[in-house]
This record gives sequence, structure tokens and C-alpha cells, in this order.
Amino acid sequence: MDQGKWKTLRSSFDDALVRIPGALSEQGFGIVSQIDLGETIRAKLGKDVGRYRIIGACNPAFAFDAVTREPRVGVLLPCNVVLYEQKDGTAVLGAIDPMQMIATEPALKELATEVSARLERFMASVA
Amino acid sequence: MDQGKWKTLRSSFDDALVRIPGALSEQGFGIVSQIDLGETIRAKLGKDVGRYRIIGACNPAFAFDAVTREPRVGVLLPCNVVLYEQKDGTAVLGAIDPMQMIATEPALKELATEVSARLERFMASVA
Repeated sequence: MDQGKWKTLRSSFDDALVRIPGALSEQGFGIVSQIDLGETIRAKLGKDVGRYRIIGACNPAFAFDAVTREPRVGVLLPCNVVLYEQKDGTAVLGAIDPMQMIATEPALKELATEVSARLERFMASVA
Repeated sequence: MDQGKWKTLRSSFDDALVRIPGALSEQGFGIVSQIDLGETIRAKLGKDVGRYRIIGACNPAFAFDAVTREPRVGVLLPCNVVLYEQKDGTAVLGAIDPMQMIATEPALKELATEVSARLERFMASVA
């Protein structure tokens, strides 16, 4: 998926899950939503996709700037962070890549560059 | 934003907000996250972007199908629905356009077509 940045982790799913909030906070992001997709699918369908979390990260100042420049940007917010466990037990960390998503909007290009750099640092910190 | 479908509503923000859950449900989507972006920005920055909600809609069967075909699709889930109020008091409804977002992934194209059609019907129902 070109829309995201991805890293296979050396740490476990549980270890990464614990470190995500602090690593996001270091880059100025709070967590505004959390979806346990694995549990949702298990509860609703009785099917197993393994452990799978979708975490919505938001930096209010950047969100304000983005929405002020382009009110419709909300369809791409918050910045999604994904953590899932593969069948071999390794964990994969992903984050939306704002450069792929909104760099085509001239008003948002500079902001996308900054958010992208911060998400890179977040991922390096967790990995 | 090409990444979304958009409609300016004849109904008010409050009226649309009340009708969104039922209209999503009719198309097989539950609500898995809700962000009051206006309130978040007001609380964190003391700034005003007007009323602005981001609602995460998910159809578990489609999510299961998507994640099974492409585990990294989670960076684009759930399907975002956006409702905001403009300065003149009119409300704008938006939804992510899966055809713009994932139709480039051959494994997901058919699914994107179906989800897109359902989101179109959802929007027509609220509008």
C-alpha cells in the first residue's frame, strides 16, 4: 500500500503497543481513537485476522492548520497508525503517509512534509 | 479533495448528525469511532473551526475481506464520514471515496466499488 509507511518490528506486538502512545506524544501527537479490528471482526463475524489495532493520532495544531486551509481534509484525519501481528508472530507497524495522501493539495504540501517527518521519527522510535 | 465524496446539505448540522447512524446502518456500516474535531481544537488550542465531526464507519464483513486480501489496508480504515458546518450555517457531508483510495490495488478493486456504492446511497439518504 503506497498510502502508508511500513516497518516489520524486532519487538513484539505487546511491547510495541505499550510504546506507541509515548512515541507519538514525543512527536506531538495525541491518540483520539483506537479500534481493535481483530476483536471487532471476531465479535461480529467469529473470524480471525489475528491481532490488529488501528490508532488515530492527532496533533491539534496541525489539524487546525490543515482544516483552516482545506475544510475537507477531515476525510483523511486523524493520522492512522496500524499495528498488526503476522502468523509467524512478528509485528508490523504502519502509519499513513501524508505525502502520498495530501501532497497533491498545494495548500497542504508543507504541512504534509512536516507531519510525514514526525511520523517517520515516531516509527523509528518504536522500531 | 479528490479523496472524498461531498454534498452540501439542505438539512441542518444537528439534523444530519442524528440521521447519520441509521443511514450508515441501512448500508451495513456500524460506527467504530467518533471524533469531535471542533471540540478537540477548542479544548487544546482555544481556537474555533466551527462544528466538525469525523465518524469512523465499518462494515465488519468488508473489513475482514479487505484485511485478508491486503493486511496493510488498515491504514485506510475505518471509512471516514465527515460532517461540518460552514460559516453561513449550511452543513457539508463527506465520505472517503474508496475508489480514489484503493482502486489502484487490484485485489481490492471489486470491494472498493461495492463500498463506494454503499457510501453513495448513505449520502443520498442523509442529504
